[in-house]
Amino acid sequence: MPHQPLGEFDLIRRFFDRPGSGIGDDCALLTPTPGCQWLVSSDMLVEGRHFLSTVDAEALGHKALAVNLSDLAACGAKPRAFFLALALPHEKAGDAAWLEAFSRGLFALAEAHGIVLAGGDTTAGPLNLCITVMGEAPTGSALLRSGAQVGDELWVSGELGDARLALEVFRGRVETGLSTLRHRLERPTPRVELGQALRGIASSCIDLSDGLLGDLGHVLKASDVGATLKLDALPRSALLAAQPEAVQRQCLLTGGDDYELLFTAPPGAVLPDLGLPLTRIGRIVEAPGLHLRDAAGHPIPTTGLLAFDHFVRP
Amino acid sequence: MPHQPLGEFDLIRRFFDRPGSGIGDDCALLTPTPGCQWLVSSDMLVEGRHFLSTVDAEALGHKALAVNLSDLAACGAKPRAFFLALALPHEKAGDAAWLEAFSRGLFALAEAHGIVLAGGDTTAGPLNLCITVMGEAPTGSALLRSGAQVGDELWVSGELGDARLALEVFRGRVETGLSTLRHRLERPTPRVELGQALRGIASSCIDLSDGLLGDLGHVLKASDVGATLKLDALPRSALLAAQPEAVQRQCLLTGGDDYELLFTAPPGAVLPDLGLPLTRIGRIVEAPGLHLRDAAGHPIPTTGLLAFDHFVRP
Repeated sequence: MPHQPLGEFDLIRRFFDRPGSGIGDDCALLTPTPGCQWLVSSDMLVEGRHFLSTVDAEALGHKALAVNLSDLAACGAKPRAFFLALALPHEKAGDAAWLEAFSRGLFALAEAHGIVLAGGDTTAGPLNLCITVMGEAPTGSALLRSGAQVGDELWVSGELGDARLALEVFRGRVETGLSTLRHRLERPTPRVELGQALRGIASSCIDLSDGLLGDLGHVLKASDVGATLKLDALPRSALLAAQPEAVQRQCLLTGGDDYELLFTAPPGAVLPDLGLPLTRIGRIVEAPGLHLRDAAGHPIPTTGLLAFDHFVRP
Repeated sequence: MPHQPLGEFDLIRRFFDRPGSGIGDDCALLTPTPGCQWLVSSDMLVEGRHFLSTVDAEALGHKALAVNLSDLAACGAKPRAFFLALALPHEKAGDAAWLEAFSRGLFALAEAHGIVLAGGDTTAGPLNLCITVMGEAPTGSALLRSGAQVGDELWVSGELGDARLALEVFRGRVETGLSTLRHRLERPTPRVELGQALRGIASSCIDLSDGLLGDLGHVLKASDVGATLKLDALPRSALLAAQPEAVQRQCLLTGGDDYELLFTAPPGAVLPDLGLPLTRIGRIVEAPGLHLRDAAGHPIPTTGLLAFDHFVRP
């Protein structure tokens, strides 16, 4: 049962102020590591758009930070600190169980990566979580989208499409076991270790948040190249592989919410062995655009396979 | 008339991507100035809470950045970059006139301070603006809330209370000329130059966003001291000075939205002359708490004069 909302400062102290944080002054103070550059990313999660109102609060705390750490991973940065700006409806501000679970999920992931909540803001309003993460990488070593070269091989970590398959199950369009899939949707693992290990090896990198086709498109545009992509090579779970072909294509190519890393590397590059599968899924070519191929090497049209866009309904 | 919403990437490109920004990769890349620390602050503005739905979009763009720059000013930091995460209702995402005015207000202030929009996020949702600013100060020189010493004098920049008086006029509780007041509420001037000039001079500093009593309370708590505060000394505009005593007290002491700097300095400190009035309003004392005094030096009770809190309705 919701109780009287806590005051703003009590709420911050009770749920978000951990030892070692910079909370309590107008700004957080961060000392750069000599020889490093900062990498910074900001993501906003809105109820009803990025998560359902029924989502488990602990999972939400995890995911809100995970999607931001995934951006640092994509650039090969080591996480240093994060900032949380939180708009809470009055009923949530009085719901200690919800706030405790949310902060538990948030801080478990933060502690796993050795970072502190250095500051932020709390206000009343429709539920909205805005997290800004800061990380570091040795000067000049950050992985960018713009470095892909003709002849490079195209790689992806982990498996794709399960998060989108979970959404399809939630929507009642697909019937299959939900628990594993739900975990992939609600508790993605940011590939922070892999990103750092790819510094000096990968020529370009991006994290898969909006769907493979859209995110690969960003790399191709930034690098001014094209790519061939082998549909059959895309790594997928047994659950997804058991779905009809059309469902598989949609989940693999435009699903989004994968939070795996998509990167390019020259042929013969020695890739890091972190116990995380890395799969070669294509090649960078000179001909602009994305050339999707079936097992026999024949073109598959990508028309109608749109990446996710927040203002255009698929 | 609202048009079809632009796609997310078109919207960013058209209204928010200026030359020299870092927009377009997973993270923004920032190179620290040798010998400096970073100061970072994040503020979230929610429609209906921090601004009215009828607010002028250009003024909103200005204010969203101004309140964040004010946090950098409070720490004596030189602004370097900012990040904008924006949740837009569909009708706003299709309203080019609104977006143009908003970005005009935002970038005019950014350019005045020589900073770029380095990254951010755009999504659909109830109108919410989350800005994170980053600035720098030479290592060890940042102004904090915790440095006030017994015997220090208490100073404030500019004039207090006009922003709150504007709100009272909007609410129909007070009748007076609105145009100057409205400007003070909607287009606050962050005291960025003053903050940097106070490095090495002020012993503590905070910006007045929640109201003098509450913000001074933060300094006293962080510094483990008390203060005497002279009500008559508080600098106020002719418009506010013409109001009944009760209105003046409320606007001066708990008004909020002033974005002036409140700082402490040892007696005899040579303060910067930037053409901005600085007024001595009290003194730091050993006795804990805030001791409000009238012109004759008699105590005035502060009971019932609450600072603004987002989760407790005044």
